[in-house]
Amino acid sequence: MKQLLDEPALRALARGCAVLGTGGGGDTRIGLLQATQAAQEFGPAELVDLDELPSDAVIMPCGVIGAPTVAIEKIGNGNEGVVLRDHLEQITGRKVAALMPAEIGGSNGLLPACWASRIGLPVVDADGMGRAFPEVPQVTMQLAGIPPSPYVLTDERGNLIVFRAISGAWVERLARAAAAEFGGSAVAAEYTMTVEQARGATVRGTVSLAIRIGEAMAAAADPMAALIAATGGFALVSGKVADVERRTAKGFVRGSVMIEGLGADTGRLLRLELQNENLVALEQGTVRASAPDLISVLDSETADAIPTERVRYGQRVTVLAMACDPIWRTPPGLQIAGPRAFGYDFDYAPLEELASVNH
Amino acid sequence: MKQLLDEPALRALARGCAVLGTGGGGDTRIGLLQATQAAQEFGPAELVDLDELPSDAVIMPCGVIGAPTVAIEKIGNGNEGVVLRDHLEQITGRKVAALMPAEIGGSNGLLPACWASRIGLPVVDADGMGRAFPEVPQVTMQLAGIPPSPYVLTDERGNLIVFRAISGAWVERLARAAAAEFGGSAVAAEYTMTVEQARGATVRGTVSLAIRIGEAMAAAADPMAALIAATGGFALVSGKVADVERRTAKGFVRGSVMIEGLGADTGRLLRLELQNENLVALEQGTVRASAPDLISVLDSETADAIPTERVRYGQRVTVLAMACDPIWRTPPGLQIAGPRAFGYDFDYAPLEELASVNH
Repeated sequence: MKQLLDEPALRALARGCAVLGTGGGGDTRIGLLQATQAAQEFGPAELVDLDELPSDAVIMPCGVIGAPTVAIEKIGNGNEGVVLRDHLEQITGRKVAALMPAEIGGSNGLLPACWASRIGLPVVDADGMGRAFPEVPQVTMQLAGIPPSPYVLTDERGNLIVFRAISGAWVERLARAAAAEFGGSAVAAEYTMTVEQARGATVRGTVSLAIRIGEAMAAAADPMAALIAATGGFALVSGKVADVERRTAKGFVRGSVMIEGLGADTGRLLRLELQNENLVALEQGTVRASAPDLISVLDSETADAIPTERVRYGQRVTVLAMACDPIWRTPPGLQIAGPRAFGYDFDYAPLEELASVNH
Repeated sequence: MKQLLDEPALRALARGCAVLGTGGGGDTRIGLLQATQAAQEFGPAELVDLDELPSDAVIMPCGVIGAPTVAIEKIGNGNEGVVLRDHLEQITGRKVAALMPAEIGGSNGLLPACWASRIGLPVVDADGMGRAFPEVPQVTMQLAGIPPSPYVLTDERGNLIVFRAISGAWVERLARAAAAEFGGSAVAAEYTMTVEQARGATVRGTVSLAIRIGEAMAAAADPMAALIAATGGFALVSGKVADVERRTAKGFVRGSVMIEGLGADTGRLLRLELQNENLVALEQGTVRASAPDLISVLDSETADAIPTERVRYGQRVTVLAMACDPIWRTPPGLQIAGPRAFGYDFDYAPLEELASVNH
């Protein structure tokens, strides 16, 4: 049976994307409103598996680039997806057959559903991360050797830029600077590829995974327990937000969050460091979890994930760490998304090992 | 008889472009070396009048964007002109018939000759300023309503960007940020137009004017007198450079230069303020000359213009002010290139009026 991204599916998707967003990827509340409105006006988009599409069909991965703190206030005009699709088709001379979230995390997991419903195309059940990461080339397409260019960027005013850069790192640098000029965020189509290429270059099934996570949370009397069961995650600490340091600059949010344990965790102090996403969880100088594994800050009551731009002093939260897709634990994966890729001077250790050592 | 941009013509052109550059547009020494080498290897480019080309022929205005302080150390790979021409033809579907300096001032007046000789195309005897200005939309094409987009930017590494912005101001903002990411400078093709459009959208005859200025200087026993005669300029002061304040940031050079009068001008102190180009000349709080009129700092011995990035303490210099093309003195011209366009809180007065009041 066809899976439609209708309102119930979008609501579940939004909760799941928030959890997989590890704090980043954009606020799912706004993403849900936009996707729901599009589904009402234009009919819901269809979710398809790669294997349901012809091998030579063209997939357009897409999403927001910029600082989530900005994106919650700087809303699109709604037509950006059409503009990106049209221009991409014009410069490549090929028809786009389906949209795909470049990252499933945060509102970036919802945006392709919103645009696909406006354009009348399906959404592929896959993404380039299985989570959210801050930088353009931190995607499985990069690992698979798919070129990021032509990288098409547009803003709500109607400006459009095509980057044909010599590397993913140069796309990141140039597109980030443009997003900063646009006020801190913009939207893009990137790493255009065929279905054939996408089979070995994406994390598959992540849209339906996010929907399942959201549905499990909604169905359970104890959503936190349901979420932990659905994700196989580890609760690192439960407590309250004791300090937030957050700044928006050069197209990123950076900062840190301190969480003071309560209840069984009284006396403990966990520090999260972030660049759009939560990157590292530290306790008394010891790494409890780090990228590329997922670290999400959840409302202790509802288990809903709180994006980095909405974390506030006094919130009662539980920090959940989840294992990343295995591709990120390979040497090439760690090279672009491990702790050292973010400037940390320590080697990655899988969450499961850290958890068994620390507790 | 056809005018060829051969070595003698290029040498004269370089001297003329330096004077018309009002300090900016890039160091002509490097531009001359590049253009001469290209003329030797590929044969000299031909200089043509607009009326020698078919009305529907496509003209590619081009030049460097960025800070001249950077451009003297960050040299192109030589092939950028070919890359720009090829990509422009690809995205517009039209053949480029001739190159044109976007600005005649500085090395930007020479670069099209260099590229044209490599590509095998002529150079149009016109430009978009009759001088040099710091910002992208400060061109007569903007005044004539020619769109700046597609604005194609490339660097020596092979990165390429196409900007399709909603205004000249947005191109300036976005392309400047990209040039800054590239290390402070890049090269671009912009305001592509037909010969028919160019007739009412350019300052005509400026390449041959620059050559005539250079030839007059070379032929004269007193090059300063020859230059003043050739340009109708006013010597504002002769003296020595007493102070230089110059910083390179965000793709521009900004700062100021103090000149202490010597000889007949002893006791006088002239201050130049600059943004790539010399914008304003002040003496005891009184404006002696301002953009859009031209202000050039000349070596008092040779009359050669000294670009802003080479002005140094102790140099013996004469400051020459020259009337700009009449189009810049119209209300739309002053709006984009008058003192207020650069943030100064005074109205423009023509150089000739200021000179008659002050002396």
